[in-house]
Amino acid sequence: MRTRPLKVALLGCGVVGSEVARIMTTHADDLAARIGAPVELAGVAVRRPSRVREGIDPGLVTTDATALVKRGDIDVVVEVIGGIEPARSLITTAFEHGASVVSANKALLAQDGAALHAAAVEHGRDLYYEAAVAGAIPLIRPLRESLAGDKVNRVLGIVNGTTNFILDKMDSTGAGYQEALDEATALGYAEADPTADVEGFDAAAKAAILAGIAFHTRVRLDDVYREGMTEVTAADFRSAKEMGCTIKLLAICERSKDGASVTARVHPAMIPLSHPLASVRGAYNAVFVESDAAGQLMFYGPGAGGSPTASAVLGDLVAVCRNRLNGATGPGESAYADLTVSPMGEVVTRYHISLDVADKPGVLAQVATVFAEHGVSIDTVRQQGKDGEASLVVVTHRASDASLSGTVEALRNLDTVRGVASIMRVEGE
Amino acid sequence: MRTRPLKVALLGCGVVGSEVARIMTTHADDLAARIGAPVELAGVAVRRPSRVREGIDPGLVTTDATALVKRGDIDVVVEVIGGIEPARSLITTAFEHGASVVSANKALLAQDGAALHAAAVEHGRDLYYEAAVAGAIPLIRPLRESLAGDKVNRVLGIVNGTTNFILDKMDSTGAGYQEALDEATALGYAEADPTADVEGFDAAAKAAILAGIAFHTRVRLDDVYREGMTEVTAADFRSAKEMGCTIKLLAICERSKDGASVTARVHPAMIPLSHPLASVRGAYNAVFVESDAAGQLMFYGPGAGGSPTASAVLGDLVAVCRNRLNGATGPGESAYADLTVSPMGEVVTRYHISLDVADKPGVLAQVATVFAEHGVSIDTVRQQGKDGEASLVVVTHRASDASLSGTVEALRNLDTVRGVASIMRVEGE
Repeated sequence: MRTRPLKVALLGCGVVGSEVARIMTTHADDLAARIGAPVELAGVAVRRPSRVREGIDPGLVTTDATALVKRGDIDVVVEVIGGIEPARSLITTAFEHGASVVSANKALLAQDGAALHAAAVEHGRDLYYEAAVAGAIPLIRPLRESLAGDKVNRVLGIVNGTTNFILDKMDSTGAGYQEALDEATALGYAEADPTADVEGFDAAAKAAILAGIAFHTRVRLDDVYREGMTEVTAADFRSAKEMGCTIKLLAICERSKDGASVTARVHPAMIPLSHPLASVRGAYNAVFVESDAAGQLMFYGPGAGGSPTASAVLGDLVAVCRNRLNGATGPGESAYADLTVSPMGEVVTRYHISLDVADKPGVLAQVATVFAEHGVSIDTVRQQGKDGEASLVVVTHRASDASLSGTVEALRNLDTVRGVASIMRVEGE
Repeated sequence: MRTRPLKVALLGCGVVGSEVARIMTTHADDLAARIGAPVELAGVAVRRPSRVREGIDPGLVTTDATALVKRGDIDVVVEVIGGIEPARSLITTAFEHGASVVSANKALLAQDGAALHAAAVEHGRDLYYEAAVAGAIPLIRPLRESLAGDKVNRVLGIVNGTTNFILDKMDSTGAGYQEALDEATALGYAEADPTADVEGFDAAAKAAILAGIAFHTRVRLDDVYREGMTEVTAADFRSAKEMGCTIKLLAICERSKDGASVTARVHPAMIPLSHPLASVRGAYNAVFVESDAAGQLMFYGPGAGGSPTASAVLGDLVAVCRNRLNGATGPGESAYADLTVSPMGEVVTRYHISLDVADKPGVLAQVATVFAEHGVSIDTVRQQGKDGEASLVVVTHRASDASLSGTVEALRNLDTVRGVASIMRVEGE
């Protein structure tokens, strides 16, 4: 084994960073054996140097992250500060000064992945980011390497633990959204401002990264259709149960039938209880992958948290260190397929629509006519009357999102339709 | 991209081999893009050259596998013939003549993995075998690479599709073992001679491979305790249901609490319905991994079949080809931890025991005394009388397998115990 250690600079020392530093110290012998050389924590860049950091030599701590990545003797920079800047500049500077980079930064990768990959290639260095999607769940490496000889057609994932906790709570207790969110906040599963989670921004960043890797093409955050889950109601869960379904916030990346384009989207959807994703409980994440040869695979585990994220970071760190010892780099970005990203209107799926309608003869015929006029074929309709008002639940066959949107707009203009109570896509069938 | 192709020799052209050849042809451009150079099928060794092989140039087919691997211009040998010999000699010869090897041969890897890895290292070549465990499910790469910075403590897997199909059928229909086996045979899920599957030999080979990789130590097939599932009855499933459990044939690899030893075993066991493995249906496989930092992960997918196995082989092929282009090798065997493999007697778990006993006063006291004398603490007891006979169901707290065996032997010697109807371990709690 080589005795000269590989030097690691840690950018950020919060929940994840401090766990990375702790494991690097406590598991030093193990890591050295797995890498073939010892690794040494050479510097830790933080914003607040005064905060006590147990087990970290205060002499390593600095507030000057730029100087740290410019030192020139750093082999690997581990970036766990998150956000776009200064993370982006620090990573670019790290490559320029000869370091490889391990990052957990989903927002940055989703927005600027192509440029960062290009910088890595330009300088002959690695950019690894297993921790950016679904925490500890090995996902990027399996997609990029294990399935490298296969053709992925669809990725269907629960990639946000906060929203899965809330939806699971609503499902199991019948609670409304606000009540379930309050419990998630009290238990520390939701942040004080939960917008990034509940509005699907976090999941959309992960969808962009997953779609790019799965389909060997570039998908940017802006390409991902996004709908949050704040409007999912207890009534929606009752409807889902009647359908033999539950509701999950899904990140869905699909290749079109002709193979020429892909779509990526995040929204709440009904999925059958028999689907493996339906039984993913609490704050767990799981990603279901469908490919030509392998068939249906699922990867399940904790999607967040200091230790799980640190596990993913360290797996990358070992790989990147091994590559450096070999004088090689691992598989980088693979975007050769260069596929079009189609807009949401071209997505084809099934829909569950609840309408509040007047309880009088001919309403169903009117509604059915609107669906037919927009080319949306109806699978089942259920009518329920209540005091002069009635509700109509329509489940469609597969139709394009554009056709469905047109249908709903026309339905809203019918005098006999008092309101569209909910529209929910049905996936995973 | 390099234009000179990498040359691949295929040993075996059955269900898996012909699918590998087919995908190499139909996905040639994709593979070239992912590898950075084209790959060319340079020879196919078969036993029966007369059999028609669609899509394979007859000029490539040979019966002389040894001459093929000795050619000297072969970059990668893909071995999908299975069994110990001639596979072992061919792989060794391939390394000697400069080729890297991708294998799907679980029996060989479980028996001679150490020697084969040593040969790969000696010649500076790769030995990859993702397809040897759980078919298409990426498992070896995640364990070896993604979790390389973590510490795995337990692997709990459903790694044999045939037996999972049979047990799932028994669970869902109340069928007995023979009836379920007959259906599995009729549907092609079980072979005419199902011994390797139902007696746990296949799962034991996979357990040996998984334990070695998970714990960075050597575990041979002979180190694995093995119990088949042919004696699981419909009554056992009724008992399991009363416990809120189902029954699965599990491969279980555990690190001891003090970290100094490991165990590996295959046997039927009750697991709670709430455990993610409980809902693995039909012929699917799934492996549950518990580690220090990542927590609980699960990998799910098809464990067998031509296409899924070919997907795993091709993923390895891409990695091995990339390594060759880089002039490097991937992570090889990691056995630095060099842990003792403890015998089954030292395994600690819970037990569900059904006894047929005389229906008279004092029996429970006698039975309880035997458990106490062997240091096995009882969690619950349930008595059920029927026509002078009675049954006694005992569920224990955690105890060593040796203590439990001693207890059962002593119970058999009690006059009032007519028989031990079943002993089943309880896992995954």
